[in-house]
Amino acid sequence: MIVGGGFGGIEAAKALRRLAVDVTVIDRNNHYVFQPLLYQVATADLAPGQIAAPIRQILRRQRNTEVLMAEVVGVDLVTRRVHFDIEGAGATIEHKEQSYDVLILSTGVQQSYFGHDEFARFAPALKTLEDATSVRSTILRSFELAEVEDDPERRKALLTFVLVGGGPTGVEMAGALADLAHVTMVKDFRHIDPTTARVVLIEAGPRILPTFAESLAERAHQQLVSMGVEIRTGAPVKLVDAEGVVIGDERLRSASVLWTAGVKPSPAAAWLGAPTDRPGRVLVQGDLTVAGHPNVFVIGDVASLEQDGKALPGVAQVAMQQGRYVGKVIARRLAGAAAPKPFRYFDKGNMAVVGRNFALLEAQKLRLSGFPAWLAWAFIHINYLAQFNNKLLVMAQWAWTYVTRQRGSRLILGRH
Amino acid sequence: MIVGGGFGGIEAAKALRRLAVDVTVIDRNNHYVFQPLLYQVATADLAPGQIAAPIRQILRRQRNTEVLMAEVVGVDLVTRRVHFDIEGAGATIEHKEQSYDVLILSTGVQQSYFGHDEFARFAPALKTLEDATSVRSTILRSFELAEVEDDPERRKALLTFVLVGGGPTGVEMAGALADLAHVTMVKDFRHIDPTTARVVLIEAGPRILPTFAESLAERAHQQLVSMGVEIRTGAPVKLVDAEGVVIGDERLRSASVLWTAGVKPSPAAAWLGAPTDRPGRVLVQGDLTVAGHPNVFVIGDVASLEQDGKALPGVAQVAMQQGRYVGKVIARRLAGAAAPKPFRYFDKGNMAVVGRNFALLEAQKLRLSGFPAWLAWAFIHINYLAQFNNKLLVMAQWAWTYVTRQRGSRLILGRH
Repeated sequence: MIVGGGFGGIEAAKALRRLAVDVTVIDRNNHYVFQPLLYQVATADLAPGQIAAPIRQILRRQRNTEVLMAEVVGVDLVTRRVHFDIEGAGATIEHKEQSYDVLILSTGVQQSYFGHDEFARFAPALKTLEDATSVRSTILRSFELAEVEDDPERRKALLTFVLVGGGPTGVEMAGALADLAHVTMVKDFRHIDPTTARVVLIEAGPRILPTFAESLAERAHQQLVSMGVEIRTGAPVKLVDAEGVVIGDERLRSASVLWTAGVKPSPAAAWLGAPTDRPGRVLVQGDLTVAGHPNVFVIGDVASLEQDGKALPGVAQVAMQQGRYVGKVIARRLAGAAAPKPFRYFDKGNMAVVGRNFALLEAQKLRLSGFPAWLAWAFIHINYLAQFNNKLLVMAQWAWTYVTRQRGSRLILGRH
Repeated sequence: MIVGGGFGGIEAAKALRRLAVDVTVIDRNNHYVFQPLLYQVATADLAPGQIAAPIRQILRRQRNTEVLMAEVVGVDLVTRRVHFDIEGAGATIEHKEQSYDVLILSTGVQQSYFGHDEFARFAPALKTLEDATSVRSTILRSFELAEVEDDPERRKALLTFVLVGGGPTGVEMAGALADLAHVTMVKDFRHIDPTTARVVLIEAGPRILPTFAESLAERAHQQLVSMGVEIRTGAPVKLVDAEGVVIGDERLRSASVLWTAGVKPSPAAAWLGAPTDRPGRVLVQGDLTVAGHPNVFVIGDVASLEQDGKALPGVAQVAMQQGRYVGKVIARRLAGAAAPKPFRYFDKGNMAVVGRNFALLEAQKLRLSGFPAWLAWAFIHINYLAQFNNKLLVMAQWAWTYVTRQRGSRLILGRH
């Protein structure tokens, strides 16, 4: 039984394809989401359907696998049962449970507001497709409201977009948002000038993109500034409310604040009663099982494992490689063979895109920035997306956007 | 001032492009929707963004035109002012008004439940993008719930899809839904067989597609039956509730009922205090103005005009031609020239698509059905869509769907 149909869960399911096992994948959504492109839905570049696919559809040819749309609420390690709720439109319909022989938890992370959950109302996260379409509506509606706003102060607040968190998501959002305001929509309004829209990227630490080499992060910083993005580093956010954000003594008025500053693990550790690291991720052993439970694997962002004295990062590649590794462990066990060597993450590198034609690429000793990195970024993302989605429509969309500078999906929804 | 950014409003705005006038287009949504393909969003063929475009984007190069996202709530014919609400996310922010010299109302129709508005909760309509994504979620969720349902009766109800109304939308939905269940999803489930899903099309009148020639409607009927759709004609729906529908003495249990049975005009007549026809559409004169108000035009589905003793149908072509005609009237007035001849609708024909590879086409004396009509349908719709959207991505999507039999957008959203 695999809980979670993200990068780790899907790869684990695929790795079990040819084994004499029955596989169940449970996810609360009917779809897998290609998280690295979620920001492009929020900035109206791509439509939700272009970065997501039904888990059922991805695994439909795998006859030993079934997919279940349900919300897992607990695990009983003694009776080996997973408890879950079947949910209708907005309400739980039924509580059910199902037994397992081997459990693989790949439930990921959610947004963390560092103890300030009251910020969430004013500064949404960007973790689900619903988040992304809602953020998109907020951004686009701000421009619509600014167009009919007579008060200059309120108009300014409506045209100020604040991104809290200078990691890849914040940086990519900043670039895409600057491009949306300063290029795509430049001819669309009569009373406001979209090029005056402020995009402010706030980072508590000393620099943006802390997981990248300093020289590359500096390049990204310059690129963003050249696109008109204001960057505030060393600026922890004290407060977020309906008026905007407070950094130090300064209040920044904004109608659109997005929070990408931190994550916290999903409650898998609580289900298992397992030991965790400080942020709450489940400590796993070299074979990705929980100590004392050789039939319980935890993988992806919700698992905590050190390699060469450093914690593995919460990135898609780790989850995917761990999913495949678990498949290998199970195959060996079924064959009565020796366990494989402990899991080792092979770091294929790190990428981030900054607007049009500019990306960063860091892989082993290679450090690339600018247009070549952007081409590599586009190629690699199309390639990974196609593994899950079986389609190249995103490429057509990107090509169209690239040529016309227009977007694919500038819809404000949710009115009714 | 143009109220309504649908087929009629957009064409009117475009027709005023080169005149020495200031044009304002007001719509409650930021986007224009290509209504004829809305059913394809509901059946997961297309994504919302593929059949919609921001009105602002469509008209961005037209420098004499501004676009305003607001909900019109009234018109004052004496002071010549339009009253509207500016709406934020879920709440009215401000009430405003704007004066006009010439008013063009193109506010369309909404769904009618023939006095049974209580049905709406259980049998949604298909008029907006929000309707379409919500119907899509309901349909897809029914399959998900059926997959985990142990009770055979409830499973049957979850796999019964009822379409009330045998007009083009009902027929096109029935075909697409049968294809979705019986072809696209055939390999996706382990506990249910999607090919056993029932699609029931209910029509109160004696036959489906009453606006088409009887021979063509009969072909469509046969085609739907061959696709496994059950058709009930002469079957007025007495009741719709949480359990399904009641036709005569028979109860049909269904978890997914869609209502496409009738329309009622938007409240333009009430705003104007103008005389209407029986359904409430504004009676207009040969130049599409309201009697006694030469500066007030009403066009599209909300206008009532007879031609050769028959009321003009509520179709896109009428609205578009009327929009262009109003542009001509205004141009003549500005030039001090004589008024053009009264409006005459040129009927380019009528089309409906029934599943894959089969459509109906009726134009003047031409009557076509089957694959050639389907090709013509696809070509014509791509062509009209491109006028508004400037893109051919739908063609790529259709080609992909055609080859793979998979859909582009099978997402269940709205969970959070």
